[in-house]
Amino acid sequence: MSTPAFNTTQEYEDAVTGWWRTGISRIRPGEVLLRGYPVEQLIGEVSFVDTIWLMLRGDLPEPGQRRLLEAALVAAVDHGPQAPSIAAARMAATCGLGLNNAVATGVNLLGDVHGGAGQQCMQLLADLDQTAAEGTDLDDAAEKLVADHRASGTRIPGFGHRFHPRDPRRDPLLRLVEAAESHGDVPGWALRAGTALERALARGRSRPVPMNIDGATAIVYSELGFPPELGRGLFVLARSIGILSHAWEEKSAGTRIKGPIPRPLLPDYDGPARRDLSGGDTG
Amino acid sequence: MSTPAFNTTQEYEDAVTGWWRTGISRIRPGEVLLRGYPVEQLIGEVSFVDTIWLMLRGDLPEPGQRRLLEAALVAAVDHGPQAPSIAAARMAATCGLGLNNAVATGVNLLGDVHGGAGQQCMQLLADLDQTAAEGTDLDDAAEKLVADHRASGTRIPGFGHRFHPRDPRRDPLLRLVEAAESHGDVPGWALRAGTALERALARGRSRPVPMNIDGATAIVYSELGFPPELGRGLFVLARSIGILSHAWEEKSAGTRIKGPIPRPLLPDYDGPARRDLSGGDTG
Amino acid sequence: MSTPAFNTTQEYEDAVTGWWRTGISRIRPGEVLLRGYPVEQLIGEVSFVDTIWLMLRGDLPEPGQRRLLEAALVAAVDHGPQAPSIAAARMAATCGLGLNNAVATGVNLLGDVHGGAGQQCMQLLADLDQTAAEGTDLDDAAEKLVADHRASGTRIPGFGHRFHPRDPRRDPLLRLVEAAESHGDVPGWALRAGTALERALARGRSRPVPMNIDGATAIVYSELGFPPELGRGLFVLARSIGILSHAWEEKSAGTRIKGPIPRPLLPDYDGPARRDLSGGDTG
Amino acid sequence: MSTPAFNTTQEYEDAVTGWWRTGISRIRPGEVLLRGYPVEQLIGEVSFVDTIWLMLRGDLPEPGQRRLLEAALVAAVDHGPQAPSIAAARMAATCGLGLNNAVATGVNLLGDVHGGAGQQCMQLLADLDQTAAEGTDLDDAAEKLVADHRASGTRIPGFGHRFHPRDPRRDPLLRLVEAAESHGDVPGWALRAGTALERALARGRSRPVPMNIDGATAIVYSELGFPPELGRGLFVLARSIGILSHAWEEKSAGTRIKGPIPRPLLPDYDGPARRDLSGGDTG
Repeated sequence: MSTPAFNTTQEYEDAVTGWWRTGISRIRPGEVLLRGYPVEQLIGEVSFVDTIWLMLRGDLPEPGQRRLLEAALVAAVDHGPQAPSIAAARMAATCGLGLNNAVATGVNLLGDVHGGAGQQCMQLLADLDQTAAEGTDLDDAAEKLVADHRASGTRIPGFGHRFHPRDPRRDPLLRLVEAAESHGDVPGWALRAGTALERALARGRSRPVPMNIDGATAIVYSELGFPPELGRGLFVLARSIGILSHAWEEKSAGTRIKGPIPRPLLPDYDGPARRDLSGGDTG
Repeated sequence: MSTPAFNTTQEYEDAVTGWWRTGISRIRPGEVLLRGYPVEQLIGEVSFVDTIWLMLRGDLPEPGQRRLLEAALVAAVDHGPQAPSIAAARMAATCGLGLNNAVATGVNLLGDVHGGAGQQCMQLLADLDQTAAEGTDLDDAAEKLVADHRASGTRIPGFGHRFHPRDPRRDPLLRLVEAAESHGDVPGWALRAGTALERALARGRSRPVPMNIDGATAIVYSELGFPPELGRGLFVLARSIGILSHAWEEKSAGTRIKGPIPRPLLPDYDGPARRDLSGGDTG
Repeated sequence: MSTPAFNTTQEYEDAVTGWWRTGISRIRPGEVLLRGYPVEQLIGEVSFVDTIWLMLRGDLPEPGQRRLLEAALVAAVDHGPQAPSIAAARMAATCGLGLNNAVATGVNLLGDVHGGAGQQCMQLLADLDQTAAEGTDLDDAAEKLVADHRASGTRIPGFGHRFHPRDPRRDPLLRLVEAAESHGDVPGWALRAGTALERALARGRSRPVPMNIDGATAIVYSELGFPPELGRGLFVLARSIGILSHAWEEKSAGTRIKGPIPRPLLPDYDGPARRDLSGGDTG
Repeated sequence: MSTPAFNTTQEYEDAVTGWWRTGISRIRPGEVLLRGYPVEQLIGEVSFVDTIWLMLRGDLPEPGQRRLLEAALVAAVDHGPQAPSIAAARMAATCGLGLNNAVATGVNLLGDVHGGAGQQCMQLLADLDQTAAEGTDLDDAAEKLVADHRASGTRIPGFGHRFHPRDPRRDPLLRLVEAAESHGDVPGWALRAGTALERALARGRSRPVPMNIDGATAIVYSELGFPPELGRGLFVLARSIGILSHAWEEKSAGTRIKGPIPRPLLPDYDGPARRDLSGGDTG
């Protein structure tokens, strides 16, 4: 039962090397091909953002596509040490870890709730666009989606912000998408879906729920044809910059074992009063 | 004893908010400053690599600096699924993790040996340059360093490669540094130290030990004035692109629980023969 | 707008220390309380498994509970280097990381698919028990659940194994649950639900789909009253033992930068043929 | 050059399966051997701590050894949310991560400074014992070691604590080692070295620098014959309990995106004043 069904040396080689088959890179002695391009041709010729696009999509981007991707990556690099990903990476840097481990610690935290919202928003925009493609008016569809979320008490990912009444990254990103659409660089469907959603969220509300960075970059990445999961992936690449910068700031300061609050402050405790194993309560 | 020494509300606020003090970003309602620049001014105006430099160094780079940093980042994005960081991220993607967790898994592996060698090489180049500054001939110093390493049986970080007789990323990177030096964009000291080391390693050897990607990027980052620890940090940023691309390739393929070798192959076991708790050996 | 609403020093202290409030431990100078017990009373008096229970549940377990938890933890410590969590930790250990980073790398992979299946199985058992509590015959409910999964082409978490026709950990764990139920130590509902599911899966099949370690420990943890999410948490604690042991074996062997397959074997490549940036295809 | 040197199918199989060779476990269809023991014999028969010892050391422990290991593991499970490993795991749990990812985040932080000190202390104890074995009086050797550290301004790992004037975990652990030595269960050398170091640190000081948990467990693990690196590994296993408990407490509370300090408090910023890309300073 455990005997492999390999009869020839070639079958072995195929099974083992095929198990790690990839369409991304070919590494042979003296050769590094990235999506078919010899790396020595790329170095000095294409930009870092071109290379990100090449690696994720298989080909180099058009200039208009690169500009949009570049803008979205720049927009998301940092949001301060209050963000748990940044705070955790700063603490990691004070525990004697290498910068790679500190960055990994921060990146690990960019989950469904913190950063991953962009992925969910991309899915939502795609669903909304699909509904519109099937004949429903986009604003009606957005209104229904907002009503459904309000009824179930769930948030709409990509909208609303704990700090910003209006996220300063929204307007410049959306302006760039508008310009790209007018030049025919992107189709515009996600921009229309996202702004319809924003309008629906504002309707009948004294306080609007404006688009946040997750929503604005979701529009950019959707317009550029990235699948929703890569929305999270691209956010990871962007925020890594802030995570590294903050970890490095902490590391160069030489702080040791940084906890969340300064030393003289002790966390509150609301567990059981002091008690003895023998049964007594010695509070 | 545990009573904090805070007398006023202001002292509290200072202690707590000061504990998270940063010079990198200021986040206030409606405002995101990165190294002083409002984020809305950066979006669409500066490149992603400009922003990396800004975040790590505090100011925007000169064009010649940006070009070199860009080239070094492009050079290091990927080296195939055989690299443990990439393989681990691919396996992570098949275990139901988000892309953030898969990237973190890969980045975590870029330690002292795998990727971290660039940091060590930068330190070496700085030491060599220091020796030369104190009057020793650079080639003599390099020769001594090589002899010392050979005597102690340790490798010189940044030189030699398991796959490549000559790393294809070396030449284009070094050519760019040479050009940058001739334009006065960089001082050239690390290039001189690195090539002296390479010459010393080749002397009296039938098979040279050429510079690898860690060595070539160590020269670039040293010339640009980054401290050694950030050499590792920049490698992390670059390789994250490959890690994400490979994790995504695996995730989109839908593989589940990918181990290192295909299923019918079972790892060798060289532990004790089967034995019974009661004492018998039932192998 | 950004002005905190704190008027007194006390309000500050409450906000900050309350933000980190916990019912698990109180740490004050000279004092470490765990769930109310001074740590110095626990040391040497209670077992490690008692302490796991105490920390997660708030009180010490009954002897019958401890025995079951102990058995389930022992059962899950390792399943060989073929498991991606173990393989990734072994590779991590060869990249110059500390054992803490290597263990973290392995634990990170115990996601929804690899290890997390126990959590999903616990949810399933609870749902099945709920259906039975509402009057449906347990076997009918199990049969319907199996039919639903077959119709939708999804697996039932906790059943079936890629290696084992019959998982050797199933029988001893279930025998212990049966004994515990007969002593009144556990209620028995999860055992009934799990075995009903197993019977339903076997019916009309030439090859049964027996319970695996995720299913058997799901029964134990459910019987002991752990919520489903802690099923995954307990698996993490158990498998950490194997992860650490394997990482240590690799680290003590001194291997450097271990990839998934030995050096002379190169992964297959099925991406684009070699092409030039200038446009030519030079494959 | 890239052609593998494998001539027969058997050579392939040996290379590939040998690459993942292990002495820890043998997994074959229907069989799980741990260090030679069939897992079904261990379940219900040996304790979790026995299994930890078995997996790391290759054989089951003597009762006296198990008691000491058990006590050291119990002692180190938690030190409150102020510890960065715990705080980071709590924050991770609020970002939508699974408990496995939250535990990995916390464990990753147990580096050279936070937790890893035990490993360094074990090395120190071994060095001290070596010096004594070579004929130097132990107290003299300890005194010299303390003087050297004071001269170079470095801390002695395993001694001194930020919170505790006297770590409550020290005394019970050392009493157990003393008892074990008097029963002949352990040799006593690490206890002698550690207490000599403690005496040397107290001499001529108004305020002693007592042993902390890292020092006390270093003595236990050294007496039990664990190599220093496993000191860190065992700390990881112990502290995982606290990390999991705290992550779970946060997750069950339903907090979202928890930063280090409560929302109305903003971190201090000491970077450049607000400035414009165009060059103006608009502070």
